[in-house]
Amino acid sequence: MKKIAVLMGSDSDFPKVEPALKILKAFGIPTQVRVMSCHRTPAVVKEFSENALKNGYGAIIAAAGKAAHIAGVIAAHTILPVIGIPISSTTLDGMDALLSMVQMPPGVPVATVAINGAENAAYLAVQILALSDDSLAKKLVEHRIKMTEDVIAKDLALQKRLVDNP
Amino acid sequence: MKKIAVLMGSDSDFPKVEPALKILKAFGIPTQVRVMSCHRTPAVVKEFSENALKNGYGAIIAAAGKAAHIAGVIAAHTILPVIGIPISSTTLDGMDALLSMVQMPPGVPVATVAINGAENAAYLAVQILALSDDSLAKKLVEHRIKMTEDVIAKDLALQKRLVDNP
Amino acid sequence: MKKIAVLMGSDSDFPKVEPALKILKAFGIPTQVRVMSCHRTPAVVKEFSENALKNGYGAIIAAAGKAAHIAGVIAAHTILPVIGIPISSTTLDGMDALLSMVQMPPGVPVATVAINGAENAAYLAVQILALSDDSLAKKLVEHRIKMTEDVIAKDLALQKRLVDNP
Amino acid sequence: MKKIAVLMGSDSDFPKVEPALKILKAFGIPTQVRVMSCHRTPAVVKEFSENALKNGYGAIIAAAGKAAHIAGVIAAHTILPVIGIPISSTTLDGMDALLSMVQMPPGVPVATVAINGAENAAYLAVQILALSDDSLAKKLVEHRIKMTEDVIAKDLALQKRLVDNP
Amino acid sequence: MKKIAVLMGSDSDFPKVEPALKILKAFGIPTQVRVMSCHRTPAVVKEFSENALKNGYGAIIAAAGKAAHIAGVIAAHTILPVIGIPISSTTLDGMDALLSMVQMPPGVPVATVAINGAENAAYLAVQILALSDDSLAKKLVEHRIKMTEDVIAKDLALQKRLVDNP
Amino acid sequence: MKKIAVLMGSDSDFPKVEPALKILKAFGIPTQVRVMSCHRTPAVVKEFSENALKNGYGAIIAAAGKAAHIAGVIAAHTILPVIGIPISSTTLDGMDALLSMVQMPPGVPVATVAINGAENAAYLAVQILALSDDSLAKKLVEHRIKMTEDVIAKDLALQKRLVDNP
Amino acid sequence: MKKIAVLMGSDSDFPKVEPALKILKAFGIPTQVRVMSCHRTPAVVKEFSENALKNGYGAIIAAAGKAAHIAGVIAAHTILPVIGIPISSTTLDGMDALLSMVQMPPGVPVATVAINGAENAAYLAVQILALSDDSLAKKLVEHRIKMTEDVIAKDLALQKRLVDNP
Amino acid sequence: MKKIAVLMGSDSDFPKVEPALKILKAFGIPTQVRVMSCHRTPAVVKEFSENALKNGYGAIIAAAGKAAHIAGVIAAHTILPVIGIPISSTTLDGMDALLSMVQMPPGVPVATVAINGAENAAYLAVQILALSDDSLAKKLVEHRIKMTEDVIAKDLALQKRLVDNP
Repeated sequence: MKKIAVLMGSDSDFPKVEPALKILKAFGIPTQVRVMSCHRTPAVVKEFSENALKNGYGAIIAAAGKAAHIAGVIAAHTILPVIGIPISSTTLDGMDALLSMVQMPPGVPVATVAINGAENAAYLAVQILALSDDSLAKKLVEHRIKMTEDVIAKDLALQKRLVDNP
Repeated sequence: MKKIAVLMGSDSDFPKVEPALKILKAFGIPTQVRVMSCHRTPAVVKEFSENALKNGYGAIIAAAGKAAHIAGVIAAHTILPVIGIPISSTTLDGMDALLSMVQMPPGVPVATVAINGAENAAYLAVQILALSDDSLAKKLVEHRIKMTEDVIAKDLALQKRLVDNP
Repeated sequence: MKKIAVLMGSDSDFPKVEPALKILKAFGIPTQVRVMSCHRTPAVVKEFSENALKNGYGAIIAAAGKAAHIAGVIAAHTILPVIGIPISSTTLDGMDALLSMVQMPPGVPVATVAINGAENAAYLAVQILALSDDSLAKKLVEHRIKMTEDVIAKDLALQKRLVDNP
Repeated sequence: MKKIAVLMGSDSDFPKVEPALKILKAFGIPTQVRVMSCHRTPAVVKEFSENALKNGYGAIIAAAGKAAHIAGVIAAHTILPVIGIPISSTTLDGMDALLSMVQMPPGVPVATVAINGAENAAYLAVQILALSDDSLAKKLVEHRIKMTEDVIAKDLALQKRLVDNP
Repeated sequence: MKKIAVLMGSDSDFPKVEPALKILKAFGIPTQVRVMSCHRTPAVVKEFSENALKNGYGAIIAAAGKAAHIAGVIAAHTILPVIGIPISSTTLDGMDALLSMVQMPPGVPVATVAINGAENAAYLAVQILALSDDSLAKKLVEHRIKMTEDVIAKDLALQKRLVDNP
Repeated sequence: MKKIAVLMGSDSDFPKVEPALKILKAFGIPTQVRVMSCHRTPAVVKEFSENALKNGYGAIIAAAGKAAHIAGVIAAHTILPVIGIPISSTTLDGMDALLSMVQMPPGVPVATVAINGAENAAYLAVQILALSDDSLAKKLVEHRIKMTEDVIAKDLALQKRLVDNP
Repeated sequence: MKKIAVLMGSDSDFPKVEPALKILKAFGIPTQVRVMSCHRTPAVVKEFSENALKNGYGAIIAAAGKAAHIAGVIAAHTILPVIGIPISSTTLDGMDALLSMVQMPPGVPVATVAINGAENAAYLAVQILALSDDSLAKKLVEHRIKMTEDVIAKDLALQKRLVDNP
Repeated sequence: MKKIAVLMGSDSDFPKVEPALKILKAFGIPTQVRVMSCHRTPAVVKEFSENALKNGYGAIIAAAGKAAHIAGVIAAHTILPVIGIPISSTTLDGMDALLSMVQMPPGVPVATVAINGAENAAYLAVQILALSDDSLAKKLVEHRIKMTEDVIAKDLALQKRLVDNP
């Protein structure tokens, strides 16, 4: 099975990235987690992304805050799908990272998910891998069913609570 | 080869979506273009997205402006990757559509590209299909090389122009 | 008397929605509270909204954060007035939800109230029901008088406090 | 049948308000159009809104740009539903009017629709009146069906055009 | 001496308005503090502002958050200078109140100061009164000198601290 | 009578400032118009504002776009009321100038009016002068009455037009 | 004398960059203009910026719109001062490019100037070079004096025009 | 060696400015820290900046929040490079200060760094001084290498942690 890389510009972003790892693990996806920076370790970024395809990756998730160039720079060095997670910092609520990731020029897309949306970066990566992996597709369908059941359960629980405590 | 669906909420969005079609055609991807609205033809949207996987699609591109719910609603009905193009309207420069597309809740991602970024929606779709199609991957690499050559040519042309007209 | 539905995309939104319930209760409006998601339980949303009119509802209040599609999707399935409460999340202060709710395309309006404005969603629902219910209209007028008296009382209290503690 | 008032702060807003009038007319709703300003003719605004209920109105639509106080001020003088249309001016794209209309304090709601969203203000008013008028409800359902048919027709037309001009 | 009125839309705004009162008191300006709301006590607002000039006021300071219509509504009823203090609420950082106050239509200005800028509302009121009161003008000059001395003292203190703790 | 100074950072702002001059002229206020820049002619700005009080000015209106420091810098050199007009430039719609003018630190207020709100800068200046000039106050009241009459006339004209062209 | 490099991500940005070239030329600074893209020609960007110091450059000006990563990526490969010009595109008024350039992580600064502020990028570069070049410093002082004189001349011209056409 | 001035508008900004001092100290740059305000001590600001060049400064760092005029005003009085640090206040996340600093008019640039980006202000100042100081340039290169090593170490540490706690 193809692997997913999960990169972050700073290890301080790890808590906001961790939900992606849990989801990828739950789907049984082999995952590589790396800290690298297109500003501080550009050679590492270049080397990693240039070789990601041949090293067996199926998609690269990149998380960063503020100027958040890493996703775009990775995308410049690979034809793999690159998924960007804009991370909120102490100011601007992640709007800076969102715009910096999503507003890429033609030819070099970054598939951007919600601010601090690590879960969806992982789900999107699984959806991409599932295109050529029926067992993953089956797990995704099951997960959707479980999500549906969870909301229905919460709906019933809330209604019961309101009936019990009118 | 898997097909790509290109959906738009209104046919008035067609001019902003058309660049995606040209790119998909250039890569030889079979493409289906549809006008559908999760507010005006919700049954069509549901039927299309629920059956897209089994109908041979590999990804769905959805373009919309303003509230721009269509990409998210499609994503709710399929495990295919859904790619959102936020379209700018007469006010707010597409910021409304961008936020409405990108800020999806966990479990139902929309891979969002730039405001009016139809080209990148297409490239992202091609990159996703190329994961299991070596000839597409080869074309993507060639396209990247061509992009590089184009920029280099423009660089030389500009330098020449400035030398000639100092 | 017609009922009011109060829907939320996630039960975590309940604390921000609860003020609406208290107001509806104070006005004696029969209320149905539900957790449903146009992304996770779209069939529930569709079924509920398609039947809301014939099930005796007079308006539907929908609260959601971030992409906040639920109000618009409900509005697509009913001709009942749909009232949207944009909920603020951990980033962007609810601006994403506000734009996603208010910027609906022609033909499918969402009556949007303030960010986290659950009270006003309830008051608006009561005002709508009061159009054909004179006793509700009377209660609304009384409530307005009470609001006026409250502000006047606070005004006097503050003036007294400032006189006592110059 | 109850009437709908359509108010605007300045007659220069008329072109942006006119689509509402056409829709109300198409639904056969008696409509009163007025220019009034809570800053320049506050007495007119007060008098009109205080008497709107007893004068047979069912809802008041108010359009304004920039500070856009009129909808809120009207709402302060009536328990009728007040629908606000934020109008874009030469700067800020109507964001000022949107926030000024939607961010009303508890107890005095303004049902806000999209920036320049005159159509939806009208549809919302019709939906409100339709709660106690079955023939209006029937027309709304028919209108929804027509909207659906229109989108389907545009969908087919676009597909045909693309087949004819591949 | 002319009086200054300090109005707030809600007594919960008092802590953010209080700095204005301290400054007005320090300058010896007779001040009237009132809670009134153009949405909940519009008659009070109208009565107060219509009579403010003849009741001896020289300027009216109005503080409010969110839709923040009060300053504009007061300005509609008086030719006295009206000074608006936009108050930040739990969301949007006061940007809603700022735009609602400052974007007034021609003919009815609100002199807007910084978000939560109660001090400057007071200073501006004093500056206005000082135009025809030389002793106030003298106090303002003295206050400016004191501000200058304070900054110079802080400058020296910081430099000393850095020398002592290099 | 006290004079009003109307300053602009660049003579290219003149067309947006001119409406203020017309209003001041209509009220018979002696006006001095100047181009000066706190970045390019800081000595002129300092000299002018330090002496404005003793030179017989009653208020200073300053218009500028982008960084728009001039109003604040003038305010630092005078205790006269300083009125700021944020001017929109080719980008950002004047939001930069608005924030730069309105967000002044405590002690040095700038009375900020709407973006491109030259008219209101003039009206505010007249209102300030009218505090100690009964004939100006009378003219302001007359102007308010005229504004009211104008809106009422436009209201009647629009109603007539709609009756004539239903 | 050290050279200044002026880089742009796309030759379509040339008209917005050209004012910088005129200023650098007027100051007699040897200038190299290049089109390069960190997304399309990353190797060129890396090679250029890694060698810029030893190739005799004193500062690098980089202009780009939208995601605008180029300035930051260059800064990652050189210790030369990098000056960023955010360019406005068809949407968002350059706010995306501004945030992407200015919000760089610690250790890798980009000296950001105004949106479309090519002139100031050039002036800043000259100021930096002038630190070790007295003749440049002299020219800068002369330029400041000329700017002052220009504003004074415009001031006089406007005053004359107003006197002549009162 | 040339000195760097670090100015702040208020001593309350010191904690956000302090990181710059530590970096300048680490590079052995003589630094002068001052509290001065273009609104409260304009004469100090003018005197300091007019004489900064001849007093041996090589660049001036200015930090301020809200209206944040100080950097621009300093830049008006010197041809030294002026580096602006926009400081976030209790509202608006520093966006006001960012725009006020970066949007300077042609001829008077402020080299703006990230919101609260004191570190980068210092690094930029060092980069500027290093242009004519080879030992500083060497230290900068060493610092870049150390940054690279730090990220690589964090990368390895995170990978190890994830292997140890899968």
